[in-house]
Amino acid sequence: MGKENLLHLLEAEAGEYVSGEEISRKLNVSRTAVWKQVRKLEAEGYHIEAVPRLGYRLQGKPSRLSVHELLPKLNTKRFGRQLHLLDVVPSTQDEMRRLAEQGAPEGTLVIAEQQTNGRGRMGRSWVSPAGKGIWMSLLLRPPVPLPLTPQLTLLAAVALSRAIIREVPVTIGIKWPNDLLVNGKKISGILLESAAEDERLRYVVVGMGISVNLDAEDYPEDLLTKAVSLKMASGNALNRSDLIASILEEFERLYELYLEQGFAPIRSLWEAHSVTLNKETTLHTPQGPILGVPRGLDDMGGLKVELADGSSRTIYSAEVGDRVVGS
Amino acid sequence: MGKENLLHLLEAEAGEYVSGEEISRKLNVSRTAVWKQVRKLEAEGYHIEAVPRLGYRLQGKPSRLSVHELLPKLNTKRFGRQLHLLDVVPSTQDEMRRLAEQGAPEGTLVIAEQQTNGRGRMGRSWVSPAGKGIWMSLLLRPPVPLPLTPQLTLLAAVALSRAIIREVPVTIGIKWPNDLLVNGKKISGILLESAAEDERLRYVVVGMGISVNLDAEDYPEDLLTKAVSLKMASGNALNRSDLIASILEEFERLYELYLEQGFAPIRSLWEAHSVTLNKETTLHTPQGPILGVPRGLDDMGGLKVELADGSSRTIYSAEVGDRVVGS
Repeated sequence: MGKENLLHLLEAEAGEYVSGEEISRKLNVSRTAVWKQVRKLEAEGYHIEAVPRLGYRLQGKPSRLSVHELLPKLNTKRFGRQLHLLDVVPSTQDEMRRLAEQGAPEGTLVIAEQQTNGRGRMGRSWVSPAGKGIWMSLLLRPPVPLPLTPQLTLLAAVALSRAIIREVPVTIGIKWPNDLLVNGKKISGILLESAAEDERLRYVVVGMGISVNLDAEDYPEDLLTKAVSLKMASGNALNRSDLIASILEEFERLYELYLEQGFAPIRSLWEAHSVTLNKETTLHTPQGPILGVPRGLDDMGGLKVELADGSSRTIYSAEVGDRVVGS
Repeated sequence: MGKENLLHLLEAEAGEYVSGEEISRKLNVSRTAVWKQVRKLEAEGYHIEAVPRLGYRLQGKPSRLSVHELLPKLNTKRFGRQLHLLDVVPSTQDEMRRLAEQGAPEGTLVIAEQQTNGRGRMGRSWVSPAGKGIWMSLLLRPPVPLPLTPQLTLLAAVALSRAIIREVPVTIGIKWPNDLLVNGKKISGILLESAAEDERLRYVVVGMGISVNLDAEDYPEDLLTKAVSLKMASGNALNRSDLIASILEEFERLYELYLEQGFAPIRSLWEAHSVTLNKETTLHTPQGPILGVPRGLDDMGGLKVELADGSSRTIYSAEVGDRVVGS
């Protein structure tokens, strides 16, 4: 039995209960097989209610992104114009790196409805269920030298923040370098993977994971104190296509500004959105923890930290404050 | 006809001429097929003389690296201890990137007798005939943030210089960032390919191509004014295993020094070997040419250049002086 047959049967009953026995008879399969297919459909974002003695009832279908809906909303020259909209992939990052090695142009976008092996910073797994978030990777081929890559990490955080607050009435704070927080809880993750030859960047893959319409039950319990979705934060579900279009527009605009005018305007925007500056915090660097007060960004994109003795130090790699696990 | 049969036949005659007609008869193939196989053997480093009316004569066999010869010479803890000695590959860099993605440990080395698609800086092809050079890639997994990668480029140049002058009585000058010159001609190329997630380096593949025992006829004519081999420069052929062992030893030693003490000692060594400093030169940057006098390296590994108006500028990506084509 394919899960499609089960889906047709439930859809035909238009929201009424169908008993497991009836399904089992009509599709000529065991009750256990029916249950397994129900689980598969749920993993794909269908919402199926199971009530003892009554049976199964289709309550909701996954929201699906479509190229036909998305493309007319794009207000960009290049970003998202080469669009790969996929159903399920292990990770949009891996898919994009493959395309990048094959010569895909700047602005190419890979979106997946679902990731089975989504990755966050430090190889952490990332909760990315079907139909409820935006899991996508954008390809850049920036004509800037390798040491300036951290500037692009910061640029991505600013672009995402600006797009979100355009679409949703929430306040976003950027935690250095690129975590976006709403009321102190993480709403999105950004991961830049770069490939370089000597000091020349070959490409940068900007991975963005945004918890849009996830509900509390989509998160492991221990994550609920640290993570939140835009729907949970604002009380309303969002149209994901609108948000994707806004992200691409903000990102392209800031990227062009950066290529024209350099890092200065990006730095100002980042500093204005930051929740990391001017508060004493612990920075967990690969060389150990540092206690200090982050004061701003330097020209390269490093974080200038004022230490207890009044001296200043620039940090390029660290985690700020509590270590966030699993998101 | 396999080229092996032809080789056995020529070897059996121990340096005497064998006529094409005789080969053709004994191996039961056309004269044209014989000629094609001769060409293939030559591409692998065999030296076969062809004289009209006399025939073919085997004059030299390719020098071959062997793990049994190389391993006892290694004086390293990790560098080269995981050794992949290959016959022909498109590029040792691509091979190593594949191994790196599979989790190969730091110090893993890929050496190829011959590359069919060797690459230098800027995607230029690299002359890498069989048995006459050292074409290899070394894997690093440095615990340093991405913006410091240029320091590793400079470290590689110093390590290679020191190893070469230990083995060969020549004077090496480093042209920024990592070209090694003997009497102004290029003797080796270094290419670092790095992969990063945000500011964390996942790995760096250090590609090294050294023209060891190439003869003038191995180079395209237009390259002879710009490139030279160690054999041509010193008058003597070198044992390639000795040089590989020296390179790995110097590289590991400098790398450990760098991880312990930072960039300062590497910078001093680089500046001492440099032929770029304190001479007016043109720097071809992605944003256009800059005329100035390079004065030294900054803390990050950038090149500090004094401009005509007395101001100073740090360059991370440029080609110094004449653009070298094809090597």
